[in-house]
Amino acid sequence: MTGTDPDVGRLVVSCTDQPGIVACVSSFLYRRGANIVQSDQDSTGPAGGRFFLRIVFHLPGLDKELPRLEREFRQEVAARLDADFRFRAASVPTRVALFVSRYDHCLLDLLWRARRGELPIEVCQVVSNHPDLADEVSSFGVAFEHIPVTRATKPEAERRQLGLLRDSVDLVVLARYMQILSGDFLDRIGVPVINIHHSFLPAFAGAGPYEQAKERGVKLIGATAHYATEELDEGPIIEQDVVRVSHRASARELARRGADIERTVLARAVTWHCEDRVLVNGRTTIVF
Amino acid sequence: MTGTDPDVGRLVVSCTDQPGIVACVSSFLYRRGANIVQSDQDSTGPAGGRFFLRIVFHLPGLDKELPRLEREFRQEVAARLDADFRFRAASVPTRVALFVSRYDHCLLDLLWRARRGELPIEVCQVVSNHPDLADEVSSFGVAFEHIPVTRATKPEAERRQLGLLRDSVDLVVLARYMQILSGDFLDRIGVPVINIHHSFLPAFAGAGPYEQAKERGVKLIGATAHYATEELDEGPIIEQDVVRVSHRASARELARRGADIERTVLARAVTWHCEDRVLVNGRTTIVF
Amino acid sequence: MTGTDPDVGRLVVSCTDQPGIVACVSSFLYRRGANIVQSDQDSTGPAGGRFFLRIVFHLPGLDKELPRLEREFRQEVAARLDADFRFRAASVPTRVALFVSRYDHCLLDLLWRARRGELPIEVCQVVSNHPDLADEVSSFGVAFEHIPVTRATKPEAERRQLGLLRDSVDLVVLARYMQILSGDFLDRIGVPVINIHHSFLPAFAGAGPYEQAKERGVKLIGATAHYATEELDEGPIIEQDVVRVSHRASARELARRGADIERTVLARAVTWHCEDRVLVNGRTTIVF
Amino acid sequence: MTGTDPDVGRLVVSCTDQPGIVACVSSFLYRRGANIVQSDQDSTGPAGGRFFLRIVFHLPGLDKELPRLEREFRQEVAARLDADFRFRAASVPTRVALFVSRYDHCLLDLLWRARRGELPIEVCQVVSNHPDLADEVSSFGVAFEHIPVTRATKPEAERRQLGLLRDSVDLVVLARYMQILSGDFLDRIGVPVINIHHSFLPAFAGAGPYEQAKERGVKLIGATAHYATEELDEGPIIEQDVVRVSHRASARELARRGADIERTVLARAVTWHCEDRVLVNGRTTIVF
Repeated sequence: MTGTDPDVGRLVVSCTDQPGIVACVSSFLYRRGANIVQSDQDSTGPAGGRFFLRIVFHLPGLDKELPRLEREFRQEVAARLDADFRFRAASVPTRVALFVSRYDHCLLDLLWRARRGELPIEVCQVVSNHPDLADEVSSFGVAFEHIPVTRATKPEAERRQLGLLRDSVDLVVLARYMQILSGDFLDRIGVPVINIHHSFLPAFAGAGPYEQAKERGVKLIGATAHYATEELDEGPIIEQDVVRVSHRASARELARRGADIERTVLARAVTWHCEDRVLVNGRTTIVF
Repeated sequence: MTGTDPDVGRLVVSCTDQPGIVACVSSFLYRRGANIVQSDQDSTGPAGGRFFLRIVFHLPGLDKELPRLEREFRQEVAARLDADFRFRAASVPTRVALFVSRYDHCLLDLLWRARRGELPIEVCQVVSNHPDLADEVSSFGVAFEHIPVTRATKPEAERRQLGLLRDSVDLVVLARYMQILSGDFLDRIGVPVINIHHSFLPAFAGAGPYEQAKERGVKLIGATAHYATEELDEGPIIEQDVVRVSHRASARELARRGADIERTVLARAVTWHCEDRVLVNGRTTIVF
Repeated sequence: MTGTDPDVGRLVVSCTDQPGIVACVSSFLYRRGANIVQSDQDSTGPAGGRFFLRIVFHLPGLDKELPRLEREFRQEVAARLDADFRFRAASVPTRVALFVSRYDHCLLDLLWRARRGELPIEVCQVVSNHPDLADEVSSFGVAFEHIPVTRATKPEAERRQLGLLRDSVDLVVLARYMQILSGDFLDRIGVPVINIHHSFLPAFAGAGPYEQAKERGVKLIGATAHYATEELDEGPIIEQDVVRVSHRASARELARRGADIERTVLARAVTWHCEDRVLVNGRTTIVF
Repeated sequence: MTGTDPDVGRLVVSCTDQPGIVACVSSFLYRRGANIVQSDQDSTGPAGGRFFLRIVFHLPGLDKELPRLEREFRQEVAARLDADFRFRAASVPTRVALFVSRYDHCLLDLLWRARRGELPIEVCQVVSNHPDLADEVSSFGVAFEHIPVTRATKPEAERRQLGLLRDSVDLVVLARYMQILSGDFLDRIGVPVINIHHSFLPAFAGAGPYEQAKERGVKLIGATAHYATEELDEGPIIEQDVVRVSHRASARELARRGADIERTVLARAVTWHCEDRVLVNGRTTIVF
């Protein structure tokens, strides 16, 4: 993101809740001259629950200090607390691959926001099972790869996708990608995968969701962004939002309103993820 | 509702869509000196779809004219269009029975709004399967009947409820009534029954919905008001709304936020129903 | 808009409220074989108020019938009711000129929606007082004209704008155009002009609105789309919406959230205007 | 609030931002056996800005430890950081006086929520310049004092109010109190005063705000809760919200929708204040 201070770093920690975590972590940073700019924490329960911490700090010469910070934190703090942790320079953009099928609203919105410097990401690659959006993507100067997927070719297609992306991206975003990724793919890609899908009250299964919503007379159209897991549409929720609709809207208009809310919700989810604001805790998330 | 003009009437019509409906209905009213104040219509499709019309009109001496209006409309218009219709004086409040169990938030909100003259209703009777809220209800000057319900006594309880209410109310509102009404009861009560329940994205079945919502990390808590049918929570939707929540809210706080949204959504649904704004079309509604 | 039925027309009427308007208008349409698909009306008061009507109808061979319909409506109905009216074929897109300065979010969102067939418009021309967005606009295949404006050259600039647009567009949209149009320009352009601007609770005057909002700790950031008048930001309101923000958002992030809500509100306002849903009544609007 | 753990305490700190604050405060708590359950911080800028911290902690035997904790924190931490701070037991309710005139919606909503155990408050006294709501308030078992106010008697009325409340309440809530409190009263009452008022986009000054909103065709009706200051409606904002309205709503209906949003916003503001979530920073607030 344009103009991010190169001396700003982020630290995310999770461990079993126990007294003294904040004192321990903040003393560690203080002794190294890091000034805490923002700090958030949450716990699922002080007695034996899980503790989550996100700290934004300012440290002159961060890029040179980061490797030493990590090494010493591992030895002095993480080992003692039995904690998972992650340091990151806020100025380094997240490398992202976008998967898309034919609906372009989420893809274009992300490409556009990335180009305007609104998102802390670098879009490295777009992958699609259809060739339709090739020119559009190229006009943003982003690589586009058409990898068709049929039931028969899916394993081969996933191999190609992995070959293209593994070790070169930090995040995969399914920007209306209408194929289900296998559990094997999710394991091997080794980075988080964010998905967006429509949501209704009540929920509808199966094809033609907006036709079903119209038929049922729902008054709210929503979208949910979540981490993809093998169980379709069941991963930890990152963000949700809704928009009001009335009986006047046709199924087609519902789909349009839905597209608007999908792109907004997905942009928020990607932003928050890339700012290390989203911590996964089993089936749920903490969004700082 | 305080101060409603006694000369304001409402007409609701539904029939197979066909050319000339509005011309026919509006000419009928015009010839009788009624001035159309507001008019809404909707159609599921001009060729063979279903047509819905709601008209608010002003007619001096409405209360005396209403029986003649109905008779002549039946003969001159409804017969020709094969239409269902309903005339009503806006100044006559809807007679309502409220069913409740132990949660008081929806009940008190309706009683309170009714007392302040905000709702076009007269609350005739509160029925509960628990005695807890008797004093509270009495303080509003409304009759309270405690009719316990167990699996064994349910048929007898429903007979008592029917004896108490049949032919004396125009609407039953389930203001967090935690018992399922039988299809037989719904048939025999002969008036619409409005229910309110919590709604989530995604939906949760079974007990402890707020615990499930907490566990799943939902970001929106909602409520749906709908007409009760034999299929639980599946009747035509009247109104829905949601409120944002974060990971910080406990299951108990989620339930509180849910209670706020439930009472708001239910009040809107009852108001709109009693103003003849809600027209049922199979499994869906049109809300003018 | 792709796929709009060529036989669907719209009629908008306004006149002094009086008995029989709907009967008169609907009979007129019925006798010519037009089937009313949707109808909305509103009145500021049955006794001497202003009456507003919007009708969507289906008439086979509409494009050939339209001139005759207009002529006969003028003679038979409008003359009698002393009414203003407008017929339009729903399939004919509104010709739009977009004015922009440097902020691109509203402009690109409209261009993009137009290209996807989401908006019932044809963008004929983009006019800007800065050259920055020329390439971006050209990539959409839309003409771009750079007309610089300074205090000294403003009259000349407005003459050039009028020369370019008069009689060739149906609507001007100020998509974050940071110049004030003169009353003279608004008179002579002869078509409606829609503007978008940020809105806060409370309102802030003057420069740096997001800095002021940050300073004041507002919890909601909003946008208002309205018809432009000589009094800046004071024309009839078409649409408004808000988004929640917290103390955590910097002034820069507030501006970004504001941009999101601005483009959404403006797209809705343009859509509704072009669907003849927005009827101006003095300083206010009726949005059907 | 029912069931609050007596061992849960809250600490609020503000001081000039400087390195080591969190380390210093968290170490202090850690050494005394307090386990930090929740912690939020914010800074207006690491270099010389203002730093704000709110900590929720668990300490067995809190009520006995609190005086010692305060004394030692003052000596060991606050003196060193030149910090303002406040310790509080979460289980001790805030003592509140409610001021009201004739509109009852905010008053009743707060009384009702307090009785249900939803708010962490004890309502000690209701003060009104009208006698109308005396019986209503008494039915909640709360003392009601009628203190009429005219231009002439205002100083005397404020003296009576101060005599009744000074040193016996922690918070004053203006629940639609239609009198302006003098700067002298605000100084001498010595506790925060929360006010609620309607808000619109754009804002309207003067009488009949809902009539003005109707006249201007606003699409959103809002409410703002803020701390009262001598400058009317200009104090630090705690919470705001809006609800959508259409041209169909009369000024009277706008006022009703406004009342709904006022009571909701005020209840949230009072809850957050009493949970020490609202930290004032000059003209703005931080809401954790």
